[in-house]
Order: sequence, then structure tokens, then C-alpha cells
Amino acid sequence: MLSATRITGVLSPVVTPFKSDLSPDKDRFVRQCRWLLSQNVGLAVFGTNSEANSLSVEEKAELLDALIEAGLDPARMMPGVGHCAITDTVRLAAHAVHLGCAGVLMLPPFYYKGVSDEGLYRYFSEVIERVGDSRLRVYLYNIPPVSQVPITRNVVERLLQRYPGVVAGMKDSSGDWNNTKMFLDAFAGSGFDVFPGAETFLLQGMRNGAVGCISATANTNPGAIARLYSSWRNTDADVQQQQLDRIRGIFSSYPMIPALKAAIAHYAGDSAWAVVRPPLVELTAEQSRSLIADLDRVGFMMPGLAA
Amino acid sequence: MLSATRITGVLSPVVTPFKSDLSPDKDRFVRQCRWLLSQNVGLAVFGTNSEANSLSVEEKAELLDALIEAGLDPARMMPGVGHCAITDTVRLAAHAVHLGCAGVLMLPPFYYKGVSDEGLYRYFSEVIERVGDSRLRVYLYNIPPVSQVPITRNVVERLLQRYPGVVAGMKDSSGDWNNTKMFLDAFAGSGFDVFPGAETFLLQGMRNGAVGCISATANTNPGAIARLYSSWRNTDADVQQQQLDRIRGIFSSYPMIPALKAAIAHYAGDSAWAVVRPPLVELTAEQSRSLIADLDRVGFMMPGLAA
Repeated sequence: MLSATRITGVLSPVVTPFKSDLSPDKDRFVRQCRWLLSQNVGLAVFGTNSEANSLSVEEKAELLDALIEAGLDPARMMPGVGHCAITDTVRLAAHAVHLGCAGVLMLPPFYYKGVSDEGLYRYFSEVIERVGDSRLRVYLYNIPPVSQVPITRNVVERLLQRYPGVVAGMKDSSGDWNNTKMFLDAFAGSGFDVFPGAETFLLQGMRNGAVGCISATANTNPGAIARLYSSWRNTDADVQQQQLDRIRGIFSSYPMIPALKAAIAHYAGDSAWAVVRPPLVELTAEQSRSLIADLDRVGFMMPGLAA
Repeated sequence: MLSATRITGVLSPVVTPFKSDLSPDKDRFVRQCRWLLSQNVGLAVFGTNSEANSLSVEEKAELLDALIEAGLDPARMMPGVGHCAITDTVRLAAHAVHLGCAGVLMLPPFYYKGVSDEGLYRYFSEVIERVGDSRLRVYLYNIPPVSQVPITRNVVERLLQRYPGVVAGMKDSSGDWNNTKMFLDAFAGSGFDVFPGAETFLLQGMRNGAVGCISATANTNPGAIARLYSSWRNTDADVQQQQLDRIRGIFSSYPMIPALKAAIAHYAGDSAWAVVRPPLVELTAEQSRSLIADLDRVGFMMPGLAA
């Protein structure tokens, strides 16, 4: 059984380590997830920054199994499960529920563009009906800059009306504070939990009813982001936010996923971490040096990172 | 062994029939494919118009098996195999090669946007290496209006240099004649076969070295499109093209995939054909009536359509 307590706080779309043959590296994955939990950051594994869309359903199911077998707490997990095909999404979502995960993060089907609200409603509805488990907690994943398929307020309202409690919240990675604010104003406190899709909007979010954030840079800067989450009412909150923004700004000036992996490779002293799956390409040696120099300049560290 | 003869002519991205529970309907699928072959149209099953991206790898593999078991000729098949994950694409492509399909149509990985030519080259290269079968014939599927990930001439040239013969051609659904013409000018006659992505460019294409076309409306107007292909040097070719354009114009004024299915449902007298998978939505009754009225007005028919 899932706890009645919802998953909240800072979550990381955990970057997925690969071996040199591009197969998922379970051992490094478990170590990284354990380290993130030690930094008070939860596990939104299989997000955009996890290269989740470069992994098959089977590969994700096996990685999730590895976390559970290693004794990590599923109450701190919100795996991404969204595929283009209902049958794939249902398979992965059902597996996550079976393992006791606190929730699942669900992309809209993202191949066909210009689809209607009715079509998106039917997609999510069909998935929920097929999983058919009262423990399911769906977090809608709105990321139109990548998916090119926005999830509208109308779709959220229809789903909430039909599946209250099961449709539990959303991650808004629109990158547009006005859009996140619209969802917060409409739903905060109503049982539909809104996570801004980057720590950029963590403080503003918390002041407007957000329940945390799910952010790429929580992979590399987890402790500091989690500290702002737990102390956002403190007088130094704005200063903390500025410090987070400075670190994020450095990562954002490189291709994000390769940069996160390059930083982990450097600070863990483990070059294997730099591997990405095509169509992504790892940073060049020059880009890596430049990234690390930028980070060193502001005193960035990854304390306690698993080697 | 594959025949040394390349697959050419008019191919249809065959619309996929679903039962009322949204599972693929193998019997109707086989009947439709057999009818298309009888109209001299080949089987580019699992294309965009097939709702292929709403199907899992397993569902597609089983539908392909059903065609082979029914005795349809794999030399007339170019199934779509492109998924976002290399592992999925490899699985389906290897299965198609194993069944003796003439070629496979391969989307670029379409979740991550703004990827580099190097990343796309590595993706296609990794798939080809993993399939590892000299019978593999890859047709690249360029459809930036939907995938949002264009395949550039640079990527084609690099792949051709490394995998001559295996990289056998492309479908260009850019919808931009200048782009199709650029690929024709660069590659026609060199062993890299270019199929325009609609019959709109069939005559222009043939006059510039194309080897046929792969078109949505080949699902509903196969005979007439195949006739222009085989008689494009005749004096009535321009008149034929105008007639094709008129029919296409009617379908294009409705949501394409639901409209194709509504037309088949009507002319086959088989309402089950109208079912689509979410996120698509079937035509309303009013849209269907209007579509059929538009088609009746120009004397459209689907002769010999399987009931």
C-alpha cells in the first residue's frame, strides 16, 4: 500500500549512467540514487534529463527493479512512465505501482502534434482505467518546449473531475512562470500538487503553493536546492535562490544532459559517467574543461558524491 | 535472401484497424493489405498514418507476423520501425529483416529536439551495426512537420559513405518540394532512392528521378495513384495528377488519419474501421457525412474494397 502522504520536496530526474556498450549501468544508477536520497532529494527517475525517451520499457522496468532490490524507498520515487503508445505507458505505470512507487510522472503522447484536448483526455483516461489500481498517483508532465504537446488547464480539470485523488499533480516544465502560476492559482491546496520544472521557480513556487520542484540540476546541486525547499520561509531565502540560479546558469550554458554527466564524471573521478545515448552527444574535452572551470570559479562542489 | 531488386512504386502507410477495445485487428489489417497489393500499391505499414507511434514494438511485430502468415509478399513491404530508443528500433528492424521485408522506414529519434547531425548519425549507425545483417535496407524517414527533427543532407551523406547499399533511400515528407528536389538532385540514380511523402509530388518527382511515392491517400485512392506512377510518361499525366490532387485536397481538409478511416468505413460498409487510438479522435458524424458528400461529389469510389 502507498502511504497516504504525498511525495513532495525536491526531486531529481536522475541522469542514467551507461556502460561503454550503451547498456544501462545498474550499479552506478543505484549508487547515484542513494546519494541523492542522502541529500534529501527524491527520485523522479526516467525524466527528460534521464534520457528516458532513449530507453525501452524493459530497460526502465529493470532499472526500477534494481533500485527496489537495493533497498531504496519507493515512497521517494516518481518514475517517468510516458510513452507514445498507451500499451507501453500502461505496462511501465503498472509496474511502478506494483513496486509501491509514490507516483508516476506521465508525458502526453508526443509524436502526433496539434492533438485535441479530447484526445489527450482519452489517452490519460485510458491509461488510468487500464492500470486499474487505486494506488496509482499520476503526475502530469507538461513540457511543451520538448514534447511540443501542451497539457492544458481544461485537460487537467476534466481528469481531476473524473479521477480525483488518482490524478495527483503535475510537473510544469513550460519554462514560463505565468503558466506555472496559472496552475498554482487554479489548483494549489486542492489536492493537485504542482511542481515547477526547475529550481529557478522554487522560491516563487513555494510562495504560491507549490510542493517542491523537479529539476535537472538537482542531479548535481541537490543539497543546496533541498535546503532552500526546507527553509524557504527564512530571511536568507532570496539569497539562496540567487546562489541556485548562478549554478543553474552555468549548466544551462552547455547542453544540459551531457553537462550534468560531465560534472558527475569529474567530481566523482569516474569518467564512465560521461557516456550518453545517441541522439545525444557527450561534451567535447574542451567543453568539459570549460564547464568545470566555470563551476570551480564559483566554488561548486558535490560533497559525498559516490565514486 | 532479399531480392537484388529494390522496392519501388507507390506505397501506402497502411491505416491500422483497431477493435472496440483498441487492440489491433489482425484480420481487417490483412484484408486491407491484400486489397492494396491488388491495386498495385506496396505496404509501408507502420507509418505516421498507421498510428504506428501509438503502437508498441510487440504490437507491430505481431501485425507483421500476421501479414507473412497470410502469405503476403515481404518483397512488397517497407515497415516503419523507428522508435525513440535504439533498443526498440533495433528489435523491430531485426524482426522485419528476419521476415524478409524489402526495407525498413526509419524515423529519427523524435523526443529530444535540436539534436546535432553527429547525434543523428550515431543513432542510425548504432541501429545498423546492431541489426548487423547485410539484408537490411534502411529508408530514412524525414518528416520534420511531425517529428520536429529534420534529417539533413549531411547526415545522409555520412551514412551513405559508411553504409553504401544498406542505406537505400528516404521518404521525404517535408512537404516542401524544394527539399525533395534537393535530395533528388543530390542522390537520384546513385543507389539512394527518394520517395516523395505524398502523391502531390508524384509527377514532379518522377520527372526528377524519384522511384515512386509513399502517401497517406494511397490508403483510399491506391489504383489511381499507382496508375500515374506506371504511366507518368503518358500525355495525360498532368491531367491524372490534377485528379489525384483533387481527391487529396478533400482528405486534407479533414484530420487526415480519422478521415482515411471514415472513408474506408463508409465504402467498405464496415463502421468498425472508424476507430482510432488516443490521442487521435475519430471524425464526428457530421464531419463523416460532409467528407463522404465531398467525395461523392467528385465521383470517388474504392472499387473492390474488402468488406
